[in-house]
Amino acid sequence: MITFATMETFDLHILGCGSAQPTTQRNPSSQVINLRDKLFMVDCGEGAQLEMKRNKLSYARLNHIFLSHLHGDHCLGLIGLISTLGLNDRTAELVIHAHPDAERIFRPMLNYFCTDIPFNVRFNSISPQKSELIFEDRSLQVFSIPLRHRVPTSGFLFSEKATQPHIVPEMTKYHEVPLSFYNRLKAGEDYRREDGVIVPNSVLTRPAALPRRYAYCSDTAYSERIVPLIESVDLLYHESTFMDDQKARAKQTMHSTAKQAATIAKMADVKKLVLGHYSARYKDLKPLLAEAKSIFPNTHLSQDGFTFRI
Amino acid sequence: MITFATMETFDLHILGCGSAQPTTQRNPSSQVINLRDKLFMVDCGEGAQLEMKRNKLSYARLNHIFLSHLHGDHCLGLIGLISTLGLNDRTAELVIHAHPDAERIFRPMLNYFCTDIPFNVRFNSISPQKSELIFEDRSLQVFSIPLRHRVPTSGFLFSEKATQPHIVPEMTKYHEVPLSFYNRLKAGEDYRREDGVIVPNSVLTRPAALPRRYAYCSDTAYSERIVPLIESVDLLYHESTFMDDQKARAKQTMHSTAKQAATIAKMADVKKLVLGHYSARYKDLKPLLAEAKSIFPNTHLSQDGFTFRI
Repeated sequence: MITFATMETFDLHILGCGSAQPTTQRNPSSQVINLRDKLFMVDCGEGAQLEMKRNKLSYARLNHIFLSHLHGDHCLGLIGLISTLGLNDRTAELVIHAHPDAERIFRPMLNYFCTDIPFNVRFNSISPQKSELIFEDRSLQVFSIPLRHRVPTSGFLFSEKATQPHIVPEMTKYHEVPLSFYNRLKAGEDYRREDGVIVPNSVLTRPAALPRRYAYCSDTAYSERIVPLIESVDLLYHESTFMDDQKARAKQTMHSTAKQAATIAKMADVKKLVLGHYSARYKDLKPLLAEAKSIFPNTHLSQDGFTFRI
Repeated sequence: MITFATMETFDLHILGCGSAQPTTQRNPSSQVINLRDKLFMVDCGEGAQLEMKRNKLSYARLNHIFLSHLHGDHCLGLIGLISTLGLNDRTAELVIHAHPDAERIFRPMLNYFCTDIPFNVRFNSISPQKSELIFEDRSLQVFSIPLRHRVPTSGFLFSEKATQPHIVPEMTKYHEVPLSFYNRLKAGEDYRREDGVIVPNSVLTRPAALPRRYAYCSDTAYSERIVPLIESVDLLYHESTFMDDQKARAKQTMHSTAKQAATIAKMADVKKLVLGHYSARYKDLKPLLAEAKSIFPNTHLSQDGFTFRI
């Protein structure tokens, strides 16, 4: 039996799963992805800074914000959040990955409201036309996903990088493997002992955890074009603003129904689907869940304050 | 004994009593004054639109927003609120009374984020240099109050207009006063009956309720200059960002302590003082209350969701 190394944190925190009109139950769109204690925000609707506090997510660990599109319910919390980061002695650069308009719109606001902040805010323009690598560090790649909405919109694919296998200390000690050989073990080599016995790599290491992937698709009309980009992800957050009886309204406003979200999840063979971006008209979300589950059983409802382990 | 007519609604709803850095207990500054079912918002920090919902304050009854100054914690909820008003079929004009910079800062945001709103947003520039009448309707006058802060800042005095006395129907019937004489009764005339008997006005009418006044003073350093402008108001909301041991910090940031707020209340001989705009450092507000009460006993703490009857 293969045992994987302990999984490192890869959590999705829902800060807001409402849509254009927030309700007392649901803030406008915002979420935070925690990958190995680095925080990445996706969308920043009004109230995101307070929801970070409510969810005990450290401001200091947030260095990148990804904005799907420039509708107010996805970005109007940005200036307040940045202002508060400034009051918390931040010095690290903050990068906003967003449509090219973002800097034109928000820079004057920053210049007026955040004159004293002791850190740099950098805008990284992303093209909503194509899927591309927009961010990369030691453990993560983030790709954009072109979506279909009333204004240029990008989803995001968070793709964990493969990690090296882990050394099994009891076994390397038993076979007297020198420390100098550890890097070659991690690269997959077998070890030849001094007595000529070859110890297979699989005895001396445990495989690294499989890299995990999370896809955020909001806001978007039903679009099968995204299926190849999100194929078999561990978790898909797909907007479901409406139920199927409002399909015409969904089409008109370029949103999706719960059924359509589930259809995309099924076509992409994802492991788990989370619904969100619900219209304010739905007080009770169970009917949306039932509708999606009829097509894709492993569907879950997001709600503000929920955490999903990826 | 003089009995006054039933008092009409004049309520202060606290939507946010936090300061620059909101907490999970306290939103940034915003409040709504309900005068005879017309709503007037003072300041519009992030989250104000949701707090209106939580406090069951009708969006449709809001036509005027007064911004004390253009620090983010007093106005960053504006665009989100206006966007939501637009989703609620509003057609009536919305007037923002604010520093002249407000239109320069917020108009581009409105043009970008609120393109579809079916109503006009008008900015009325107020001078932070002097006290002047900035709004008037049938029942209310609003005056600005120059405050002392790091950026140009105005407080607001909401001054109810005197109403005419009320006719006492049992008495006008008994003395056979014709309807055509009612306006002269309301203007204070006595009535001469056909038999020559003079019926004093005080028998035929009840005095109107005394006009009430509410003053909002935030943000401001300690300033005795405002005392004549708020003399004997029914309710004074005065910022108290700090306690007295932080007096130096209050001076430096041009805020007030609870003790200073109480001193102003005492000097102006107001009827009731409400504290607010508390620094995020204070979890427990009772010490601020105690400090103010030692100087001005009729002091109360504002908290988000509280309503004060004026």
